[in-house]
This record gives sequence, structure tokens and C-alpha cells, in this order.
Amino acid sequence: MGVATVRLQVSTRGNGAVIDLTQQVDEAVKKAQLRDGIAIVFVPGSTAGVTTAEFEPGVARDLSTALRRLIPPDGDYWHNRIDDNGHAHVQAALLGPSVTVPFSDHTLGLGTWQQIVLVDFDTRARQREVICQIIGE
Amino acid sequence: MGVATVRLQVSTRGNGAVIDLTQQVDEAVKKAQLRDGIAIVFVPGSTAGVTTAEFEPGVARDLSTALRRLIPPDGDYWHNRIDDNGHAHVQAALLGPSVTVPFSDHTLGLGTWQQIVLVDFDTRARQREVICQIIGE
Amino acid sequence: MGVATVRLQVSTRGNGAVIDLTQQVDEAVKKAQLRDGIAIVFVPGSTAGVTTAEFEPGVARDLSTALRRLIPPDGDYWHNRIDDNGHAHVQAALLGPSVTVPFSDHTLGLGTWQQIVLVDFDTRARQREVICQIIGE
Repeated sequence: MGVATVRLQVSTRGNGAVIDLTQQVDEAVKKAQLRDGIAIVFVPGSTAGVTTAEFEPGVARDLSTALRRLIPPDGDYWHNRIDDNGHAHVQAALLGPSVTVPFSDHTLGLGTWQQIVLVDFDTRARQREVICQIIGE
Repeated sequence: MGVATVRLQVSTRGNGAVIDLTQQVDEAVKKAQLRDGIAIVFVPGSTAGVTTAEFEPGVARDLSTALRRLIPPDGDYWHNRIDDNGHAHVQAALLGPSVTVPFSDHTLGLGTWQQIVLVDFDTRARQREVICQIIGE
Repeated sequence: MGVATVRLQVSTRGNGAVIDLTQQVDEAVKKAQLRDGIAIVFVPGSTAGVTTAEFEPGVARDLSTALRRLIPPDGDYWHNRIDDNGHAHVQAALLGPSVTVPFSDHTLGLGTWQQIVLVDFDTRARQREVICQIIGE
């Protein structure tokens, strides 16, 4: 058994941008040289989330749009007394900061049309660091 | 420390069906012969999700109904230019593809009225494979 | 590699209360004497959830308010034929019962303004037990 930690660098424009992390996570699993185990993908920060989705432009727009409709940026948020991104905090807490994907024989157990995605809800572009940790044997 | 991977076979009618996986996960934990650790339940595919809920018919209907109300099947989705299940993709991404449940002394740490459930949002019945991975010592 | 399990005691007034668990999880990581790995925070029971959020009063109120607006307590729930907390079950299933946070060099990989929070949706105050499990090397 062993643990390997990789920090992924992600450029994001925010505002509901959906970014595919699958290839970077897959490379981290390959490099870790552990046969079976889990990859945990975790975003530090409270205005972005991680989940899986089919990464095609339509689904990416649908996911962003649905979250903006359910938790609108122009809603009334207590957090906006000290900042401008109350909606981003609620959207991120609801989506959750991490996803755990099992791998077997060095291969992630994702479906064919299933990718690991970061969704950045914040109101500005930035460079994000995402933690990818591999635990296995 | 060790890792055990089991693939669960699940028949589902889709359209928000809620399926109880607890017994299969519990059996996988027992068979793994690891005393303490975690069970990760992960669904490959991007139109179903995994969470925990009290598995009684009322909660199952309430959960499906709430997700259909929040992200309606007859909404306007970009993904529906290439398929008919845009809502299923958004619902699944929001619920998330996996749940991680700790176990101690071979026993899952679930509450008395808490079950591990798959929710299948796709628009058709199918046979699903769910990955259950046990990591522990 | 090793596994350590700690049971956190949490007093909650329910009804969407947001409780910061970060310090207790951080202490559990320090005590486990494992350098790198993951902390899994899991709530037994089906009317509370765990996620991360910036723990300041505004975000806490915004998160509770958004979930009450999306899944209202006075909605029509099948579960309310046998209890009074159908909304709490749906809110909890949607938020999810657990979060997995990686740690490196005994330090949780949280952002500066990111805390591990329990959100209790049930309709009454109670004492909750939350499982914190540490796996690593």
C-alpha cells in the first residue's frame, strides 16, 4: 500500500466554467505505480466543486445553466455584504469539493462518456490548484 | 492494508429509480476480510448517481420528484441536440457518482435508517455495473 | 499504512444548522500519526449532510436558505405520511453524507477559507455522532 499526491494546475475563467481533469488524473494514477485503489480529486477553496459528467460542450453549458437557475448570481445573499460571490459559495457547497474514483489494474473505473470535471463558480478568472491523491496497492 | 474490488450488477428501470445497494456492499465488506476501512461505491456512467437515504418508498419518490422538479426532463438542454437525456446528465452530476462509507470491525457506519442507494436518471431501463471498492486493514 | 477512527460528538439545533467540524477533524489527523492520506467525514443518519464551505455566518445562512427554497419544508412529501421531515431527507440525500479531504505532512488540504461542515436538516435539536476516519501512511 502507498499514497501519492499530485497537485494539478488549472486555468479557469470562473462563472460556471467546466474543466476536464481526467487526463491529468489518469496520468497521476499511471505514475503512482499502484495497481488497485482510489484517486481522490479535491479542490481547495470554497467557490468551486468537483464531480463527474460527460464532457461535451452541451452538458457543460446545461450544468452551469441549471446551477445558475437554481442558485442565481443576482439572488439575495448574506455573504454579499462582504463579497460579490454568495451564489458561488452555495453552488460549490452543494456540488461538493471532491470526487473519489476507484481504479483497477492502473485504469480509472470511469464510464466511456464520463469525465472528472472541476466546476468553477467564482466571479473571476484565476489559476487553481487541485489536489489529486492516489491511495492503493 | 489491502484493496478488494467487487462489481455489483444492478437492474434498473431508469427515470429516477432508486435502488438499495446496502446488502451487496455489506456482503462485499464482509468478504474482503478487512476489519477497518472504507467502502467506495461508484457508478460508471454519467446519468446515474450514488448517495445515502432512508430506503422507504416515500423517500424514494420524494427524492426523484424533487430532482425532476428542480431539473425538469422537458427543460431546454443543449445536450438534447444530440440525445434525449440532458436532464439526466445534470441531475447525475449534481448528485455525484459515488459515496464513501467507513466501516469498523467489519460493520458499515450507516445509521439505522440509512441505506446506500443508486439513483438512475436515464430515460431507459438497463443493466448497470456499480464498482464497490474496499480499502482497509 | 494504517486506519484510525474517531467519533465526533456534535450538538445541533437542526433545521438547517451549519456546524464547523474542521478543528475536530484536524486534531484527529494530528493524533493519527499518519503523514499522508485522507480524512473521511461521514454522518450516520439520513437527515444531515457533510460538505465544505467558508464558515462565516452569511454563507451558513445562504446555504440553509437556498436548500429550504429549493426543497421547502412545507412541500408535499410522501414521507410525511409517516413523519414530518420529508424535506430533510431529500436535502440530506442531495448534499451527501460525507466528504473526503486529503492531507499531506499531517496537514489537511483545505483552502484558507474552506471548512468541513455538517448541515443538519432535521426538524429537532439533537446530539449527533459523526465518524471521522483517517487512512494513510
